[in-house]
Amino acid sequence: MTFTQKDHLYMQRAISLAKQGHYTVSPNPRVGCVLVKDGQNIGEGFHQQAGCGHAEVNALLACHESGFNAEGATAYVTLEPCSHFGRTPPCAKSLIAAGIKHVIIAMIDPNPQVSGRGVKILEEAGITTGTGLLEADAIALNQGFIHLMTTGMPYVRCKLAASLDGKTAMANGESQWITSPQARQNVQKLRAQSCAIISGADSVLTDDARMNVRYQELGELQKYFSEDKLRQPIRVIIDSKNRLTPDLALFKIESPIILIRKKIENLTLWPHFVEQLPCSLEKTEAGTDKINLSALLAILAKRGLNDILIESGGQLAGAFIEQDLVNELILFQAPKLMGGEGKSLVQFPHINELNAAKKLMINDVSMVGPDIRITATFKTTQSE
Amino acid sequence: MTFTQKDHLYMQRAISLAKQGHYTVSPNPRVGCVLVKDGQNIGEGFHQQAGCGHAEVNALLACHESGFNAEGATAYVTLEPCSHFGRTPPCAKSLIAAGIKHVIIAMIDPNPQVSGRGVKILEEAGITTGTGLLEADAIALNQGFIHLMTTGMPYVRCKLAASLDGKTAMANGESQWITSPQARQNVQKLRAQSCAIISGADSVLTDDARMNVRYQELGELQKYFSEDKLRQPIRVIIDSKNRLTPDLALFKIESPIILIRKKIENLTLWPHFVEQLPCSLEKTEAGTDKINLSALLAILAKRGLNDILIESGGQLAGAFIEQDLVNELILFQAPKLMGGEGKSLVQFPHINELNAAKKLMINDVSMVGPDIRITATFKTTQSE
Repeated sequence: MTFTQKDHLYMQRAISLAKQGHYTVSPNPRVGCVLVKDGQNIGEGFHQQAGCGHAEVNALLACHESGFNAEGATAYVTLEPCSHFGRTPPCAKSLIAAGIKHVIIAMIDPNPQVSGRGVKILEEAGITTGTGLLEADAIALNQGFIHLMTTGMPYVRCKLAASLDGKTAMANGESQWITSPQARQNVQKLRAQSCAIISGADSVLTDDARMNVRYQELGELQKYFSEDKLRQPIRVIIDSKNRLTPDLALFKIESPIILIRKKIENLTLWPHFVEQLPCSLEKTEAGTDKINLSALLAILAKRGLNDILIESGGQLAGAFIEQDLVNELILFQAPKLMGGEGKSLVQFPHINELNAAKKLMINDVSMVGPDIRITATFKTTQSE
Repeated sequence: MTFTQKDHLYMQRAISLAKQGHYTVSPNPRVGCVLVKDGQNIGEGFHQQAGCGHAEVNALLACHESGFNAEGATAYVTLEPCSHFGRTPPCAKSLIAAGIKHVIIAMIDPNPQVSGRGVKILEEAGITTGTGLLEADAIALNQGFIHLMTTGMPYVRCKLAASLDGKTAMANGESQWITSPQARQNVQKLRAQSCAIISGADSVLTDDARMNVRYQELGELQKYFSEDKLRQPIRVIIDSKNRLTPDLALFKIESPIILIRKKIENLTLWPHFVEQLPCSLEKTEAGTDKINLSALLAILAKRGLNDILIESGGQLAGAFIEQDLVNELILFQAPKLMGGEGKSLVQFPHINELNAAKKLMINDVSMVGPDIRITATFKTTQSE
């Protein structure tokens, strides 16, 4: 199908609408929709929060509220309209009921079990469809969602911060404020867009960290949504030695926490939003127990958590990376040199040869205040 | 003085002419000159090699060879015309002799002993002058030259290469080809623009390194000058334990080498282009001897070497940096993670607290092939 310049403009609008849900809609996909009739935008909408209206329904609602009639209109939607009853009725049915005549779709649903069904329902109702317009932009909207649907595993980002020489702390342990306030604000955005954050008991204990999103630290994002729309990512803390205690600052923030523990204990001591899961263990070559990190990610995937941020020390981050479980590295580098005695960025206990070093591809390098922010994806053996 | 748009254009031309000497004129400054008469460029030139014609003289020569008469012309020159007899007669005198009427100068000579003298000679001869046009661009042309003239010390760059986690080698010593061929070509350019390269015996012995500029690895620079115009930087090797021997590849390249040694010995064994200098030693707090690196830089400064590149391992580079003797860091980062057991980028034996970590300001971040290249200047305590 050939798309006109106007088609491109309306789809671009739908994509920028979808982006407005970037920090609030997780774990659902970011979707935008524009309704056009007689060359006029008669209603638009996006999916803002899981459990609330989908983009198509919000656009139809806006159209109705503005006194327009959607009959005969063209709908531009960034993701194939859904075909199933979830928490809301299927959007394909809503478009049919409203008398929409054409539907232009940026990308087909990546879930192989429902992919193409929305289009089929629309076409069976006599609606003409066109797909693939600005598909690359639509894919970029929903990296985690698409990754989960196509691979069964979440898209995992690992955020690390160090000096230019890759040190996270001095030999004496000093480590606070290596990177700038601007970099730390940027980390707040990373948290805000994630379904879940994984950290370790060490990191929590060192700084009595809360690992939550602080609305007042979101900077210019505050103009996109009010504080009551802020969705906290689920905090997943690996506490394999049962060292965390309910008095920590982490447990003062009322939002879901999953504790991965050696032994589930004292359930009544913990706040209601804390869930304990047993460590899934596997044997190392040396015969000791180690946590099965892949099994942990699979558990999160089953809960629909598609966009995971690892924020931990070099040992846990290193274990995830060494086991090829991380898709993307986000590295903040402070303009400092700390010297060879400092603590190194990541630990790889099983990598001894240069050939086995983890290889990446740099996607983006930018400045965040005085610091450098590097985004890179890991190359797997398959992709080389 | 107010400058016209045409003045700007001609001075821009003079600056781009000066740049043509970037890799060949060291340790002399990069200078360009344009002669204009009746709105026409009647001759232009730049300073190509130390000992050869200065920019003004080359421009007058070009003017003459094209059959023009420079009498009454305006000269645009990026640096104040010299007033002294060196290897060539003073340029101020040549401009006067040619009957030039106006001289527009981007920057005054930074050498406090001669600064302003060229202008004075010109004005005494009835020539009108204007200074400061595109001064910032003119300053950027000659960082090393200006630094030496104003501080008495060379401008020192330190080039380092590592993985994203700041490792230069695996624990087993494996280190070859951490960065890409593109990054290594970029290093060739850094060498080509430097007056001297400082390295250590370790680096030379590890790779049997030649530490020279290879014309065929200069890429697109080859179009700016032919191989016979290639000027090799002086190779300064710190060999404080007298470990280097004349059979090394370093000594097969016939161009000046300064060996800094514990004991000057066996002079007849060495090629004619090798000079031995004794280490200048100072006592450490622990009572052991260490090389006085500041004294070494002062020796190079006295020889007019204003642009120095340190290319060494983490110990020697760390010592220069720890002693605040480095102005600029050029760090190549390969998109790899090597793990905590690898060899660290720099060693700072005397820095134990985060407060004492070396602070920098990032000037530029760019991609060189698959690698990141970071340019940063060191903040000294004074500049903060």
